[in-house]
Amino acid sequence: MNIGLLGLGTIGTGAYELINTGCCRFPSERAVITKILDKDPTKKAENAEIVTDPGAILDDDSIGMVVALCGGHDFEYGMIKKALEKGKHVVTANKAVIGAHFEELCDLAEKNGVMLRYEASVGGGIPIIKGLEQQLRLNEIDEIRGILNGTTNYILTKMTQNGQDFGEALKDAQAIGFAEADPSADIGGGDVSRKIAILSSLAYGGMIEDEKIKKRGLEDVRACDIFETGRMGYQIKHLGQSVDRDGVVSAVVEPVLFKKSNPMSGVVNEYNLVSIHGDVIDELQFYGKGAGRAATANAIVQDVLDILDAVDNGVTIPQPVFDKKLELNGNEEFSGEYYIRIDLGHDKNSLSDVLERVEDVCGLKHVNTADGKVFIFTENVKSTDFDKLAESFHAGPGELFYARICD
Amino acid sequence: MNIGLLGLGTIGTGAYELINTGCCRFPSERAVITKILDKDPTKKAENAEIVTDPGAILDDDSIGMVVALCGGHDFEYGMIKKALEKGKHVVTANKAVIGAHFEELCDLAEKNGVMLRYEASVGGGIPIIKGLEQQLRLNEIDEIRGILNGTTNYILTKMTQNGQDFGEALKDAQAIGFAEADPSADIGGGDVSRKIAILSSLAYGGMIEDEKIKKRGLEDVRACDIFETGRMGYQIKHLGQSVDRDGVVSAVVEPVLFKKSNPMSGVVNEYNLVSIHGDVIDELQFYGKGAGRAATANAIVQDVLDILDAVDNGVTIPQPVFDKKLELNGNEEFSGEYYIRIDLGHDKNSLSDVLERVEDVCGLKHVNTADGKVFIFTENVKSTDFDKLAESFHAGPGELFYARICD
Repeated sequence: MNIGLLGLGTIGTGAYELINTGCCRFPSERAVITKILDKDPTKKAENAEIVTDPGAILDDDSIGMVVALCGGHDFEYGMIKKALEKGKHVVTANKAVIGAHFEELCDLAEKNGVMLRYEASVGGGIPIIKGLEQQLRLNEIDEIRGILNGTTNYILTKMTQNGQDFGEALKDAQAIGFAEADPSADIGGGDVSRKIAILSSLAYGGMIEDEKIKKRGLEDVRACDIFETGRMGYQIKHLGQSVDRDGVVSAVVEPVLFKKSNPMSGVVNEYNLVSIHGDVIDELQFYGKGAGRAATANAIVQDVLDILDAVDNGVTIPQPVFDKKLELNGNEEFSGEYYIRIDLGHDKNSLSDVLERVEDVCGLKHVNTADGKVFIFTENVKSTDFDKLAESFHAGPGELFYARICD
Repeated sequence: MNIGLLGLGTIGTGAYELINTGCCRFPSERAVITKILDKDPTKKAENAEIVTDPGAILDDDSIGMVVALCGGHDFEYGMIKKALEKGKHVVTANKAVIGAHFEELCDLAEKNGVMLRYEASVGGGIPIIKGLEQQLRLNEIDEIRGILNGTTNYILTKMTQNGQDFGEALKDAQAIGFAEADPSADIGGGDVSRKIAILSSLAYGGMIEDEKIKKRGLEDVRACDIFETGRMGYQIKHLGQSVDRDGVVSAVVEPVLFKKSNPMSGVVNEYNLVSIHGDVIDELQFYGKGAGRAATANAIVQDVLDILDAVDNGVTIPQPVFDKKLELNGNEEFSGEYYIRIDLGHDKNSLSDVLERVEDVCGLKHVNTADGKVFIFTENVKSTDFDKLAESFHAGPGELFYARICD
């Protein structure tokens, strides 16, 4: 089968190498990339033609599959739609497009008798989409948890190793190209919420809209938070989590604490971990590189192989069905013990006032003060109640940080 | 399709429930267990006939698939062979049979145009066989590591939590039915070496014989080892590991130390973790319940579904090929820093003598003595050299324990 590749960037180059250069076990007799669409006509690929006109791929009837790796949203969304409408199979890593148009694009593929695959849109090289689809054949999945952003996990790792504040570690990560110049989607949780939306929609059988997922970023984490939670045996992680309670779904992206002995705490640098919980299988975890050229390209080419197998066997991989009407209710279903750090000395933030206000909401388990800050570990409390409490302190940037403790 | 089930024990009952009672998402219109072979004719199953004569299943042409869950070796090996020869698909969880006759049974399935699947033979509910097969389409796999025995991992977890010696924790595990009356296959590493043999044969493309894998058990671990390694930041685990260096394979089952921050250290109780390393994907880990009725039955029924899908699509899941001539060379390829504890005061085991003999082989990194014992952490050393050193002390049961430190 002839393949048209959209985008010869980092991941596109990785996919091109795996498919066209014989560097791995890819069966070259089964498929080849014949054309590559890229804005830059001076780019070179030994065994494929570089084109700048989308029509050169969309209108080429010899091309049966499009691998869409431009990134961004508008252009790639349009290209994926047109490719499906033209009866071409599509493989993409684009979480923005899949996250926003999951149901529409699956329907479109179904209608046109072609397949749409998107393994690399979540968790980089980790085969979580396929693993989830497989378990769904027997299981009702009721919970998903994931460390799903390599950039923020890298920054948290460096903060822990070097005793840095968030801002410092971010600057270092940007200097070596590990964080983007505008890192807001990574840090603020938007990247993770798209991935949690994709996994949750698939797992719970109804559309979960990314924009409605509650997000809290990592901007307020300070070196003192890493230190204080660390000496209590915890590691701070940025977690995406959703639960389905009979069609009522709570979903959040937020900083949480895991015991250092929890496998989640052992996930460092750009590695990702996704955990799913099913009624038969209990918990399954999948761990691997969440970013990087080779790992992401590996996931993309696994999708290509699945489509080639299905075509050869004269079958179609079924598209997911989103026929359940799910209600998304913020973080209503979550509760837990909490860690909170508040800088004292601001308006109304005296130690006694802080402790009184926290105690009005939940029990105090452990309190420590140092350098004009108070560090509190609480008893169990509903997440919505604790959010309200934290907001009531009207703290400025970095003056307050809090995180739920996960089992 | 009609299915014949061999064995209505714990796992067999789990598989029966998933397939025949509508308790999960299994598509009951596609297959049903019609007959169950069990020694005990008084056992009851609402929707299937209990039979005691193997011929009742083997000679029943309405049965297209046999799910073999008797355990043991001889009887089940014979039944699987006969079922394949009669043109019936086979799903089994029997690692003893697959480990010893992997190539023969795959060939037999191939010859008879049927499928043999064995996901639950390794790692209980973890989809490692399928995950490995999928990655092998693109990757050369060159390393496998696994915590693959729930019993020993449970015992190590309890030793760590309760400060127990191995013997005490084993007795407790036996009392609650978590370890068998004769636990030698679990403790001595025989169970894990079968699983490592299966995974390695599959991954490296040639037969690895279980009996030739170097095994060291956990019998000599004492509470003081847990304590001393723990305060240096390590967790003791019982690991199966193999590496393929251009057709030369080293494989061992032995106690090792992981840093507490390593995800392997976070694997507690009956959970298992399998890690594979490939040239494209780097490291992937799969984690889940390594034992237990529901999780193991889930893996078995996933195999059943894969066979039903293939049959419906008119295709055959390809059997693995074992055409590489691999050389198994013990643990020649391994090296690392080591931990060793020696009880002093025995013949020739004076402190100065011990230190001198260890130093003859490798550098000393950290030495501690307490209660008539010496605890040593060494510099890097070849595993074969360290094995020879440890054996030269001629220690009695429990008087010496050592473990390689893994990254």
